Amino acid sequence: MPEITFFPANIAVDARPGESLPVVAQRCGVKLSMPCGGQGTCTKCRIKIVEGQLESKSIGGMEILGRPGDIVLACQSRTSASDVKLSLLDLPDQEKGSFEDDGATQAVTKFAEDISDLSTLIQSTRVTVPPPELEDGLCDEDRLIEELRQKLSHDAICLSLPALQKLAQQVRADKGRIECIYIAGFNRAKVLDVNAANALPRPLGLALDLGTTSIAVQLADLTNGEVLASSADYNGQIANGLDVISRINYARHDGAAAELQSNVIASINQLIDHCLQKTADDSSSIYAASISGNTTMIHLLLGLDPEYIRLEPYTPTAFAPDGIRSGQLGLNLHSEAVLHFAPAVGSYVGGDITSGLLTTELISTIDDVSLFIDIGTNGELVIGNCDFLISCACSAGPAFEGGGISCGMRASEGAIDYVEIDPITGGCAYRTIGEAAPKGICGSGMISLLSNLLMHGLIDARGKFVQNRPCDSVTVDGRKAAYILVHDDTITLTITEHDIENVLRAKAAIYAAITLICTNIGITLNDIARVYIAGGFGKHLDFHQAIILGLLPDLPVERFSYIGNASLAGSRLALLSGNYRQTQKEIAAKMTYIDLSSDPSYMDNYTGALFLPHTDIGLFPTVAKTLKRTGGRS
Amino acid sequence: MPEITFFPANIAVDARPGESLPVVAQRCGVKLSMPCGGQGTCTKCRIKIVEGQLESKSIGGMEILGRPGDIVLACQSRTSASDVKLSLLDLPDQEKGSFEDDGATQAVTKFAEDISDLSTLIQSTRVTVPPPELEDGLCDEDRLIEELRQKLSHDAICLSLPALQKLAQQVRADKGRIECIYIAGFNRAKVLDVNAANALPRPLGLALDLGTTSIAVQLADLTNGEVLASSADYNGQIANGLDVISRINYARHDGAAAELQSNVIASINQLIDHCLQKTADDSSSIYAASISGNTTMIHLLLGLDPEYIRLEPYTPTAFAPDGIRSGQLGLNLHSEAVLHFAPAVGSYVGGDITSGLLTTELISTIDDVSLFIDIGTNGELVIGNCDFLISCACSAGPAFEGGGISCGMRASEGAIDYVEIDPITGGCAYRTIGEAAPKGICGSGMISLLSNLLMHGLIDARGKFVQNRPCDSVTVDGRKAAYILVHDDTITLTITEHDIENVLRAKAAIYAAITLICTNIGITLNDIARVYIAGGFGKHLDFHQAIILGLLPDLPVERFSYIGNASLAGSRLALLSGNYRQTQKEIAAKMTYIDLSSDPSYMDNYTGALFLPHTDIGLFPTVAKTLKRTGGRS
Repeated sequence: MPEITFFPANIAVDARPGESLPVVAQRCGVKLSMPCGGQGTCTKCRIKIVEGQLESKSIGGMEILGRPGDIVLACQSRTSASDVKLSLLDLPDQEKGSFEDDGATQAVTKFAEDISDLSTLIQSTRVTVPPPELEDGLCDEDRLIEELRQKLSHDAICLSLPALQKLAQQVRADKGRIECIYIAGFNRAKVLDVNAANALPRPLGLALDLGTTSIAVQLADLTNGEVLASSADYNGQIANGLDVISRINYARHDGAAAELQSNVIASINQLIDHCLQKTADDSSSIYAASISGNTTMIHLLLGLDPEYIRLEPYTPTAFAPDGIRSGQLGLNLHSEAVLHFAPAVGSYVGGDITSGLLTTELISTIDDVSLFIDIGTNGELVIGNCDFLISCACSAGPAFEGGGISCGMRASEGAIDYVEIDPITGGCAYRTIGEAAPKGICGSGMISLLSNLLMHGLIDARGKFVQNRPCDSVTVDGRKAAYILVHDDTITLTITEHDIENVLRAKAAIYAAITLICTNIGITLNDIARVYIAGGFGKHLDFHQAIILGLLPDLPVERFSYIGNASLAGSRLALLSGNYRQTQKEIAAKMTYIDLSSDPSYMDNYTGALFLPHTDIGLFPTVAKTLKRTGGRS
Repeated sequence: MPEITFFPANIAVDARPGESLPVVAQRCGVKLSMPCGGQGTCTKCRIKIVEGQLESKSIGGMEILGRPGDIVLACQSRTSASDVKLSLLDLPDQEKGSFEDDGATQAVTKFAEDISDLSTLIQSTRVTVPPPELEDGLCDEDRLIEELRQKLSHDAICLSLPALQKLAQQVRADKGRIECIYIAGFNRAKVLDVNAANALPRPLGLALDLGTTSIAVQLADLTNGEVLASSADYNGQIANGLDVISRINYARHDGAAAELQSNVIASINQLIDHCLQKTADDSSSIYAASISGNTTMIHLLLGLDPEYIRLEPYTPTAFAPDGIRSGQLGLNLHSEAVLHFAPAVGSYVGGDITSGLLTTELISTIDDVSLFIDIGTNGELVIGNCDFLISCACSAGPAFEGGGISCGMRASEGAIDYVEIDPITGGCAYRTIGEAAPKGICGSGMISLLSNLLMHGLIDARGKFVQNRPCDSVTVDGRKAAYILVHDDTITLTITEHDIENVLRAKAAIYAAITLICTNIGITLNDIARVYIAGGFGKHLDFHQAIILGLLPDLPVERFSYIGNASLAGSRLALLSGNYRQTQKEIAAKMTYIDLSSDPSYMDNYTGALFLPHTDIGLFPTVAKTLKRTGGRS
């Protein structure tokens, strides 16, 4: 068996000849960076062969036998019969964030802040179990169930294994007085946990937004709905692909589905741990989790095969998985914790959308039509009112969450979230989240920066730096120009034309989707009475700047509402309220999905929107006025 | 932190000062032999201190500081502040058996061999799921559930996580034709697994007898009930105590409950693996297990606290645990496999008895009264007929399963199971199971040997060797006499007076229980119309010899039936038949338990029965005649 040694970690492992290198790396715990999902396109997994030979494809796709000194892509390489020593050239440098409460957990839930019915995913009741008697011949379980049967209106009552394991001690600890945490269905109840009444932990619940790029959680007290702690970070699957298609492609490798599952579970558990550190509670008192995510993310979390999400006719395994216990996944909750998955509508409109809509008044609007836009790595749009709901999706990429931007980052502490450019010098002033030293730039910062650059004539309509507008903040290296955002002793942050292209592609995908969905239902952009914008750009999205960029349509700014991480806020509503869970079910049942990718005019709309703000400036009358005044878009 | 090093394994581990040595040993995987459950009475965990000091109790119970050279009991020792090197003097020598089909899986089930209704713990159905369509917006799960709803009469149908994980592939592998394995309740069904119709594994079920000393399993084909393979071995918990009370005591140590649980699960998994090796099936096709065991064994398997089984009023946590999935325990079955636990009646009358009774006609006897005796480490008795069932229990110890006998072993290949002694020379001829070379002696062999020794005057009524009956086969070493059973180049097997005492205690416990239960219901021994004897002594129990020993009452031998491992046979009936599961439930509901230990006359009965056959020879008239003829019991 050939032995493969990975440097710089110096980890050696035996492999079969012909084994895929990512599989070998995974087996011995070596992390490769593969944002493209192992498709050979991102070139982030380059390795240098130090000793021995590897069967590989060249970057051009030709079969080669890699020899010492050759640089090849790990994802395109297989072991040969020989021992190999190789060196990773691009170490995964996943930014860990500050783990602090940040933009990703912020949600403006003024539309749905009041939860009139606190009816969480679990219930609790207190009973006094009579002491054991030799004569009655009853076991502890018999006596408890008899009490519960008298108190609850359920005939079929059973106990979970963890509850049985604690029962003997708990029922004797406070003269038979215990509190039971249970879930109830039609004529049935299952007791998840039992605690002596004199030592009750407070029951907790987790709200979770599971995004392609970011994950955000909130820990809530189930007795009053209060949020005790929040936390957010990148999804640990980022190394396995930046968007859902890359992840689905990656999942086809041997063992990759298990790797993706364990990566996301590790990310979630880390966020839970972080919340528990703040509140000093125990994970075993988290009895419920309400999870919202796009369909692919939920499939990867549960270990379901995502392949048919990608292939026509785009059919996922499940929309609203039910009856799964936390212990089956290894989540750091009570092992019997109830998992509520927000129902998905289609392969590309997931539970994050049915959750997000819960935080808006869209579904109760009577005469007008409203638009909901969730700008994540996948952009999803819903248009409608109390009578109808139409949804569609587009692939925006992770640019607004900091992905694919050379100095991009999530909207967490130290992220530049607002920029002002001096019209004379072209230099910039900026604001950071938490007023910390700048570490990078987040989505709202990019929107602010690009609209400023455009307004002040530093970039043109194609997003290229204007060569005849000399400015100290723009550096040109050969044919590559870049804008220097920060440059001091400790850090230099620059934005390149390549970064700008990534933002343009993201905003074009969303704008094209907005125009097409309106066309589909036969209305003009101006007919939209209200636009709800969800997403994790940062706390302060400047609508005017987003319109200048051509991300949002040129409507009066008072029609826009930024609702932050609506998926997370909706998860919390579903965690806490049976009414909201019912509404969510109705939303999913009512919603129609249209497939934009099969619409022949999508490409035209997209191409037009790749400009700043658009090839057809007539669509952006107020922007045209602004640019005229400031001298932009020459 | 002091470092503790165990020899001969040379395993070192850090410990806190004052930590219990068994806990330290367990943490680093060093196995200590503690048949007494860490009570300090069996002295099987002796260690010699090589370097350093240990806080310990002397065998007399005095607190000492053990120094190099001292021999102390591990179970009575705690770490001090110093590093310690120590050497185990008694290595656990748990006999592994031959793993072959043997006495422990034999059951004479002529009383209940025919299973008229094959209604196993799981059900299966075949459906054709229509192909995915873009238009209908249904996921795979939706389409499957719709088909099942039409076919089955259940409204609430859900899929297990493992079934969801396989669904996408299986539903596409054979044009939508799949077989679903499911369990059904009132208006509900849960799909455990899905398989494409063109590649179906045969569904299997496991019958399991979980004894204190031995574990036996049978693997059955659920499509026809056929037994495909059997296997039996010792319970891996033996090192943690020989009887239920020792195990309960052991379970009180830190981490001991988890250790006991993992030991028994490892034993069960090994037996399952052994069966699967014979049949070449996969563990994931075992969808159901029917488990019968005494109440303590079931508690330890499930990780339930056994403490209150031991303490008045002897109240277990649960009698008939329900809804536990295999995956929660780590059993080597399909992770969603249904576990059926035979219902227990009390702390000392468990599911092994309600299973065992299924194989007899006791509960359908009309006028007469029958007796069921299960002779295991705990002896359980049931007396009754179709109108009443009374049960009691006694602690026989493991002597009849080979435990506590210097050359004792389970009734497996190489065990001497029958002995004949030459009246003239006192030498013996023997028969072994499988006609293999002798390795030891099993329960039926001991019964045969002792009745022969008594008949031929080699031992007296107290079980002591008769000094004035010189015989080449009896050796005397100081005050210790022993009978040489086998002595050749390869092996010497002897039976000591101490071994005989253990058998006497076992048989006295059972005989005392038989007489007391009759007294309790106001009948004489002679009123018992039929006696069913269950247990794993060996295939051929000689009733006449068991009567000479005073284990069984002196009744005509045609009233006795040896039914072998009835608990295992009953497990299989419950695995395969809903009628039998219903009968079992009724047996449990109907049975009354009486506590012999609180009966003041138990001790008198027990003491009388410690003799061969009894102090009151009038109770054994036919034995008296035999002994007169053969010259025994001088």
